[in-house]
Amino acid sequence: MIILGIDPGLATMGWGVIQTDGNRHKALAFGSLITPAGVPLEDRLLQLSDELDAIIKTYKPDSVAIEELFFNTNITTGIRVAEARGVILLCARKNSVKIYEYTPLQVKQSVVGYGRAEKRQVIAMVTMLLGLKSAPKPDDTADALAIAICHAHTGPSRIADYFNKSTV
Amino acid sequence: MIILGIDPGLATMGWGVIQTDGNRHKALAFGSLITPAGVPLEDRLLQLSDELDAIIKTYKPDSVAIEELFFNTNITTGIRVAEARGVILLCARKNSVKIYEYTPLQVKQSVVGYGRAEKRQVIAMVTMLLGLKSAPKPDDTADALAIAICHAHTGPSRIADYFNKSTV
Repeated sequence: MIILGIDPGLATMGWGVIQTDGNRHKALAFGSLITPAGVPLEDRLLQLSDELDAIIKTYKPDSVAIEELFFNTNITTGIRVAEARGVILLCARKNSVKIYEYTPLQVKQSVVGYGRAEKRQVIAMVTMLLGLKSAPKPDDTADALAIAICHAHTGPSRIADYFNKSTV
Repeated sequence: MIILGIDPGLATMGWGVIQTDGNRHKALAFGSLITPAGVPLEDRLLQLSDELDAIIKTYKPDSVAIEELFFNTNITTGIRVAEARGVILLCARKNSVKIYEYTPLQVKQSVVGYGRAEKRQVIAMVTMLLGLKSAPKPDDTADALAIAICHAHTGPSRIADYFNKSTV
């Protein structure tokens, strides 16, 4: 199964593609999309949309895993992230890729085994689980890979839950 | 000049197309796009995107005027509106329509002449300025037309400002 993990953002959108059998994972590609400040918002959204579209068409993921939004910090940044997130969801949907959403707590729980893990612990686990020689940079990229791994660990049981429920 | 005004939203997106010479305005078409609750977010965003795309291709507006977002009420609703707004901006941009953003204060100031006008005053002015027999329903539609009128009043001077500045 191929999973595209996304850490949504307007200035920086982390992305990571992994191949997994549910237990062992391999990173196929990862990086960050950067859109320049000082350019009209709609141009930045178009750039994100075009580049993400190219990533999806290149790696043909079975599913997209993306972080849910919480606004506990800067509200203006939050609006921009949500606008970018809308574009990301639309792009995945237009490519008929199934979308799964996870909270930061779920990602940490699933990757580190502890929902209140620190960022550096998440990055260390991502680096180890994917057998990378060094930590993916920037942090947004590592976060995106963590979200993909979270779905690799969680997704299959979710689907099983679904079948269990639907056959009751 | 043809202006498409948009009151962004996920459950209900108001829209209104007006033709204007800057002083006199005529409503060409208006309505609200409704997306059903209980459907995956990405499906609702795709529906918005497709229907808005059809509106833009039908009426070929010279510009899109859209309300800026402020989160002073429900934060979860705010996230959803921002996600929808991202999709709206992308759709306008993909159709190469220029986008202008206005605050609720600017819209009220421009349509009623008073930045703290009540909603019913805005609706009454929209109905009068467009020579409609009755108030556009729902309120989101009237808001969208108000934003279009705001741009009709404000846009030309903005463009003049731009030229004044750039020739200095």
